[in-house]
Amino acid sequence: MTYTLVLLRHGESAWNAENLFTGWVDVPLSDKGRAEAVHGGELIADGGVLPDVVHTSLLRRAITTAALALDTADRHWIPVRRSWRLNERHYGALQGKDKKATLEAYGEEQFMTWRRSFDVPPPPIDAGSEYSQDGDLRYADLGDQMPRTECLKDVIARFLPYWEESIVPDLKTGKVVLVAAHGNSLRALVKHLDGISDDDIAGLNIPTGQPLVYRLDDELRPTVPGGEYLDPVAAKAAAEAVANQGR
Amino acid sequence: MTYTLVLLRHGESAWNAENLFTGWVDVPLSDKGRAEAVHGGELIADGGVLPDVVHTSLLRRAITTAALALDTADRHWIPVRRSWRLNERHYGALQGKDKKATLEAYGEEQFMTWRRSFDVPPPPIDAGSEYSQDGDLRYADLGDQMPRTECLKDVIARFLPYWEESIVPDLKTGKVVLVAAHGNSLRALVKHLDGISDDDIAGLNIPTGQPLVYRLDDELRPTVPGGEYLDPVAAKAAAEAVANQGR
Repeated sequence: MTYTLVLLRHGESAWNAENLFTGWVDVPLSDKGRAEAVHGGELIADGGVLPDVVHTSLLRRAITTAALALDTADRHWIPVRRSWRLNERHYGALQGKDKKATLEAYGEEQFMTWRRSFDVPPPPIDAGSEYSQDGDLRYADLGDQMPRTECLKDVIARFLPYWEESIVPDLKTGKVVLVAAHGNSLRALVKHLDGISDDDIAGLNIPTGQPLVYRLDDELRPTVPGGEYLDPVAAKAAAEAVANQGR
Repeated sequence: MTYTLVLLRHGESAWNAENLFTGWVDVPLSDKGRAEAVHGGELIADGGVLPDVVHTSLLRRAITTAALALDTADRHWIPVRRSWRLNERHYGALQGKDKKATLEAYGEEQFMTWRRSFDVPPPPIDAGSEYSQDGDLRYADLGDQMPRTECLKDVIARFLPYWEESIVPDLKTGKVVLVAAHGNSLRALVKHLDGISDDDIAGLNIPTGQPLVYRLDDELRPTVPGGEYLDPVAAKAAAEAVANQGR
């Protein structure tokens, strides 16, 4: 028995296109991002990995990506589960800031620390910031768990309970599970699945709109380390583009 | 304590635009239908009846309507529940047939019997028909419950268990519940809520894309019989257009 897990990072958002740090700011997909999501659905259909259930974050760029991909693959009718634990990393005070201007203002080392450090988060966001999610009803139940900034380590800590309690049970019933989420929540998952070290995860970039399929054994270990992209050539090119963001 | 229920019939579909009987055939919204769904979301937001949970059928015209309306109202992140029990009435052998040609071929009386009779279904669909849903994976668990045709009485019989077991519990927790569904599954619900007789329900038409709000008392009786449309003038005009379909 192997279990099938499909990961899909949302397509380009309005703020990806403008090169701004986004985090928990709830921006829509760009037209390019919508096209990426539809193409992701075509790859899913052509690859024969039709999802039986989908898990998304609470952010519209992942929700819309899942909806467009599933509609394209004729799987729009499957059960949907959502959780804040699949949200993108909270980017703290960087939310809403221009990536290139941030790089120029703070320099390469600080910029890369904020982008890729495992355990150093950016400065926390001010409660009064227009890019803070204070008062957002979808997070009303979080209480003390509501982040004001996060590093990847923090994302892993809030993502893994959801993996164990909600996604693994779906896998264990034999369902093909689609997780439609974000660069850093998916990096958290891939780090966990592939046992990637805290240092090596910095070099791993997940491309947008490219379905990544993991077949997992009885102990939920990948049968192919790193999983398999349904379009490996396009995925490689797209991952390199992600690595060069902000340049 | 009153409970709040919002009903939304999907916007115009590709086959509404072509004047074909649709039933369980899974056609997409037309561009006009997508615009109706967005406008429905604007009315929901402006009316301050923000849904906490949404129930849809398994058909993409209701699923897309819910997604577009909720995204517009900034409630795209709420929990989603779906069931075949919210599907449109199965139109049997009429599925895929032109409404005007059917009216001309069979005459006014037979046409109106098929459209509006409470307990006379159209002839059943052939298993081999291109418009049959045999083999559709989303209905694989239905077994003997899979309809081959339905009258409104049949729709009520398969809808009410879902109402009691899934929608009512959401209402009783105080959630604002959105039901995004179809002309006949919503007529089944309205008939139940308002205690409309088997004869009188024939004259009730539900307009597309017009949110209909019911406030229900402790015994789930409407505090205002018939509920309240958020845009009553537009809803009245749209209901009259539905009544004249096929002419």
